[in-house]
Amino acid sequence: MKLDSAGLEILSGGECLNLLASAPIGRIVFTDRALPAVQPVNFCLLDGNIVIRTAPGSKLAAAARNAVVAFEADDFDATFRTGWSVTAVGHARAVSEPEEIARLSALPLTPWVPGTHDHFIVMAPEQISGRRLSR
Amino acid sequence: MKLDSAGLEILSGGECLNLLASAPIGRIVFTDRALPAVQPVNFCLLDGNIVIRTAPGSKLAAAARNAVVAFEADDFDATFRTGWSVTAVGHARAVSEPEEIARLSALPLTPWVPGTHDHFIVMAPEQISGRRLSR
Repeated sequence: MKLDSAGLEILSGGECLNLLASAPIGRIVFTDRALPAVQPVNFCLLDGNIVIRTAPGSKLAAAARNAVVAFEADDFDATFRTGWSVTAVGHARAVSEPEEIARLSALPLTPWVPGTHDHFIVMAPEQISGRRLSR
Repeated sequence: MKLDSAGLEILSGGECLNLLASAPIGRIVFTDRALPAVQPVNFCLLDGNIVIRTAPGSKLAAAARNAVVAFEADDFDATFRTGWSVTAVGHARAVSEPEEIARLSALPLTPWVPGTHDHFIVMAPEQISGRRLSR
């Protein structure tokens, strides 16, 4: 078990992806009018990429267009003070090819909020890191 | 009940602070070497300010020094697809006055990880916003 300077277990890339796949919700971190912004989203992993579904005119859709974003998921137990977190950083892109939209539409990724969410954002992690806190 | 364009309930500033106060963990969003970064932290609210305790030489301590940061907390139920999120944006500052350090040291804010965490970061929210997703 490899520990970082804070005493947290450093997770491997494979563990990070497995934990990400287990999370129903993640948080996309981006810049909105030069300010740091963060938004919880449900998501799906496809071939190691993070797929998010949003409304076409949303702030997120605009901000994540060809931007470098971070994506974070975690799960902590406040009673036992244990848990994990995984952060991925990479370029986000808006999906515009009809074939890719059709493929992504078939994913088990349904919006939690009502309304049209036929805009897909895909982020290919260039860096992925994770930490686990155990007893 | 006021809804945003995505159909989510817009929370008042008071509700946002109450929900923040109920959360054991939040996520601080900052910039690390020009890249978006996010780190889960436990925290405390004091007079409406967000107080974080970290190690003196940590990446977070360096990055949050007089920077504009975002802070997010949320709680979602994946089964019922309900929950809330609150995001605050403001300047973070490192606490250096011994009197203020003494006051913050008395808060019920104990680190989840071993090691010395006698460095305090305080963020005064300049913007706070929240959303609730209910059935």
